Amino acid sequence: LRKSDWPRAGTLLRELTATQVERLLDRSDPKDVPVVFRLLDKDVAVDVFAAIEPRQQRDLIEGLQDDDVQELFGQLQASGQARLLDEMPAEVAQQLLASLPGSQRASAGTVLGYPAGSVGRRMRPVLIELRSEWTVAEALDAIREADIPERRQRFIARLPVVAHAHQLQGMIELSRLVTADQGATIESLMDTDVLAVLATEDDETAARLCAEHDLLALPVTDETHRIVGLLTVDQAFDILEEEESEDSQRAGGSTPLAQPYLSTPVKRLFRARIVWLLVLAIGAILTVQVLEVFEETLETMVVLSLFVPLLIGTGGNTGNQAATTVTRALALGDVRPRDVVRVLRRELLVGLSLGATLGALGLLVAGLVYSWDLGAVIGLTLLSVCTLAASVGSLMPLLAKKIGVDPAVFSNPFISTVVDALGLIVYFLIARLILGI
Amino acid sequence: LRKSDWPRAGTLLRELTATQVERLLDRSDPKDVPVVFRLLDKDVAVDVFAAIEPRQQRDLIEGLQDDDVQELFGQLQASGQARLLDEMPAEVAQQLLASLPGSQRASAGTVLGYPAGSVGRRMRPVLIELRSEWTVAEALDAIREADIPERRQRFIARLPVVAHAHQLQGMIELSRLVTADQGATIESLMDTDVLAVLATEDDETAARLCAEHDLLALPVTDETHRIVGLLTVDQAFDILEEEESEDSQRAGGSTPLAQPYLSTPVKRLFRARIVWLLVLAIGAILTVQVLEVFEETLETMVVLSLFVPLLIGTGGNTGNQAATTVTRALALGDVRPRDVVRVLRRELLVGLSLGATLGALGLLVAGLVYSWDLGAVIGLTLLSVCTLAASVGSLMPLLAKKIGVDPAVFSNPFISTVVDALGLIVYFLIARLILGI
Repeated sequence: LRKSDWPRAGTLLRELTATQVERLLDRSDPKDVPVVFRLLDKDVAVDVFAAIEPRQQRDLIEGLQDDDVQELFGQLQASGQARLLDEMPAEVAQQLLASLPGSQRASAGTVLGYPAGSVGRRMRPVLIELRSEWTVAEALDAIREADIPERRQRFIARLPVVAHAHQLQGMIELSRLVTADQGATIESLMDTDVLAVLATEDDETAARLCAEHDLLALPVTDETHRIVGLLTVDQAFDILEEEESEDSQRAGGSTPLAQPYLSTPVKRLFRARIVWLLVLAIGAILTVQVLEVFEETLETMVVLSLFVPLLIGTGGNTGNQAATTVTRALALGDVRPRDVVRVLRRELLVGLSLGATLGALGLLVAGLVYSWDLGAVIGLTLLSVCTLAASVGSLMPLLAKKIGVDPAVFSNPFISTVVDALGLIVYFLIARLILGI
Repeated sequence: LRKSDWPRAGTLLRELTATQVERLLDRSDPKDVPVVFRLLDKDVAVDVFAAIEPRQQRDLIEGLQDDDVQELFGQLQASGQARLLDEMPAEVAQQLLASLPGSQRASAGTVLGYPAGSVGRRMRPVLIELRSEWTVAEALDAIREADIPERRQRFIARLPVVAHAHQLQGMIELSRLVTADQGATIESLMDTDVLAVLATEDDETAARLCAEHDLLALPVTDETHRIVGLLTVDQAFDILEEEESEDSQRAGGSTPLAQPYLSTPVKRLFRARIVWLLVLAIGAILTVQVLEVFEETLETMVVLSLFVPLLIGTGGNTGNQAATTVTRALALGDVRPRDVVRVLRRELLVGLSLGATLGALGLLVAGLVYSWDLGAVIGLTLLSVCTLAASVGSLMPLLAKKIGVDPAVFSNPFISTVVDALGLIVYFLIARLILGI
C-alpha cells in the first residue's frame, strides 16, 4: 500500500474480513482511508462502513461520490443513520435523509426524534414480539416464520412479550423457550418483573443496567409502556466503551476524540487539547498572583521557593486521587450526591492520615538538610495541604454531579487551581508564623 | 437499621431482591455488613454472597460461623471459589478447599491451576457440547435433555461444537438452531472460523475480543485445542468494568480498591493512596534539588520563582493529556508499541503547536506585566516544555507496555518527575541565556 501498488493492495485487502479491514482503517493515516475503502469489495465495504465511528464515516463520505454515499447510508440501521446525520452539516443531512425510501426515512426520523445521548438513539429495532397466550411451540414457530436475516439472529437471545398495541408484558430468553415444555404457555415462563428503560433515558445509564443485571437485551419503551426497541448486549458494550474512552480522555484533560488515535488528524488532536490547557494555564495565573503577594517573604528567604513544586505537586496528587476515586464510584452508582457528608468525613480522615505521614517525612528531611524551623513549616504545610486537597478533591465530583456537569470534566481544572492557590497561601502563612518574617 | 430495630430491618430486607441487597451492602459501613447479612433469608444470602466482590466476601466470612462459611463457599461456581481463595490466608484456603465434595474440589483445583488474571480463572463451565454430525433436531433434544438449571440457561446463547476428546470444531448460536431447518446438520450451520483463546490468556484481552466481535460467548481452550470453558458476555462485562475501575484509579494514582468506595474501611483507602504519594513526593525531591542548583539565579531574580508553578503545571498537564490518550489507544488496540515512531512524530507536532500557542500567550502576558525579556523567557520555556512533555508523555505508556508493566501505573509518576525536573532545567537555562545572569 505504501508503494502505491494498487492492484496488489486490492488483492491483499480482498482476503481480509470486515473486522480486519476496520482495524486497518483505525490504524491508517487519515489520507489513506478513502483510498483503501475504494479498493474494497462492495459487500465488505458496507460492513466496514457500518463498523467505523460516525466521525470516520463523515470524513470518508467527503471523498466519495453521491451515489455511493446514498447506497452506503441506506444500508445502515436506523440508529447508525441517526448518529451519522448528527455529524453532518444540516444541509447534507437533509439530502441524505431525503434519499431514503419512505419506510426507512420514517424509522430514521423516529430515532432522530430522541435526544442525542439517549438510549433511543442506540437501541435496535424489535425483530419479533411474542404473545403471552401463545404456547412455546407457537412462539418457536413464530420466530422461524419471522425470517430474521442471519446477521441479526444473535439479537434475539432475549425476546419481548407484548399485549395489544405493543404494551410490554414481560421478557423471555430464547434458551428458556428451547428447554421448556413445548405445550407450556409463554405467560407461565416469562419474566414479568422486567427492567425496562424509557427511550429518552441516558444511554450510559441503560448500558450500565444491562451490564449490572447480566441482561442479553434490555427493553426500551415509550411513556405509555409500549416497546419501541431493545438495547442489546453488544450495543451496551459499545456505549460503555465509548463512555470509558471519553471519561479517561476528559480525566486526562482532553476533549474526547470520537475516533481512533492514529486515524485522527494532528490538527484535531491539537484542538482536543488546547482548550483545557488554556483554561488550566489561565487558572495557574492565580498561582503567579499569590506568589507575587508573598514576593517580599520570598526575597527574604529564597529557600522557601525550593519547596514550591513539591508542595503543590503533593497537593495536586492527593486531590486527584480523591477526585478519581469518587468520580469512579459515582459512575458505578456506589456513591450518590446525597452521600456528601459521609464522603467528606471519610476523605477528611484519609487526608489527615496521608498528611500526617507525608508531613512527618517532610519535617524530617527538611529539618535534617536545612533547619528544624523550615522542617516544621514543610511538615505542617504538607499536613494542611493533604487534608485540604482530599476534601476539595472529593467534593468537586459530587458538586459537578449535583449541578449536572460531567464530574470527569469539571474536577481536574478546579482542583489544580483551587488546591494550588490555597496551598501556596497556607504555605506562606505558616512560614511567616513560624519563621517570624 | 440505624436504630438497631432488628425485627423491622429483617422484614424490610426480606422484601428486597438479591441485587437490591447487594447494592445496599455496597453502600453500607463495613461494620454493618455482617449484621445485614445475617438477617437475610438463606436463598437470598447465597445469591448476595455470589454477587459481592471477593474482598467483601473475605471480610464477611470473618464474621460468620465455619458451617455457614462452608455452605456459602460450596454454592459458588468454581471461578468464584478460586477468586475467594486468592483473597484468603493460605491456611484458611486449604480448609475451605478440603470442605468441598470431591468433584467440586477437582473443578476448583483446575481453575486454581490457571494463573491469576487469566481467562481460565473467569470462564464458565461448558454446560453442553454439540456434535457436528447431529441434525438441528438432535441438537435441540440434547439441549433439552441436558437439564440445565434455570439460572444458568442464559449462558447457552452460543454453544460449542466438538469432535472426540472435546476438540473444538466450531460454535453455533442458539438462535441459529431455532430458526434453521430441523433436518440440517450442525456442520452445515456452525461458524467454523471461530475465535478462541487459551485459558492462560490475559482476561482483559479475552474480554475485549468478546466485546469487539459482539460474541455472546468466547470459547476457551487448552494448548491441544480442547474446550475447557466459555467466557460468557456477562463475565466479559464484569472483567472490563473491573479493569476500567483499576485503570482509572491507577491513572489517578491510587492502588485499585477491589471493593465499593463506601464499604471500604478508611485505613484501606489510606493504604491504597499512601504508596503513590510517597513515590511521587520522593520524585518531587528532584525538583527541590534542581531549584537548589539554580538558587543563585533565583536570588538574583526572585521574579523567576513566581512562574514556577505555572510552568511545571502546564508541562504536567500537557504530558498527562498525551499519556492518557496513548494509554487508552493501547488498551483499545488502536496503537501498538511498534507504532512508537508514528506516535512520537504526531506528538512532537501536537506539542509544538500547543507550545507555540501557549508560548505566544505567555510572551504577551509576562511581557506586558513585567518585561519583554522575561516574556521571551516564559514564551520560549512554554514552547520547549510543551514539546518535551507531549513527547515524554506519549512515550511512557508505550515503553511501559513494551517492558510488560501496566501503562496506567507507570506513566503518571515518571511524567511528573521527568517533565518537572527537565522543565525547570530548561527554564533556568533559557533565563540565564536571555537575561544574562
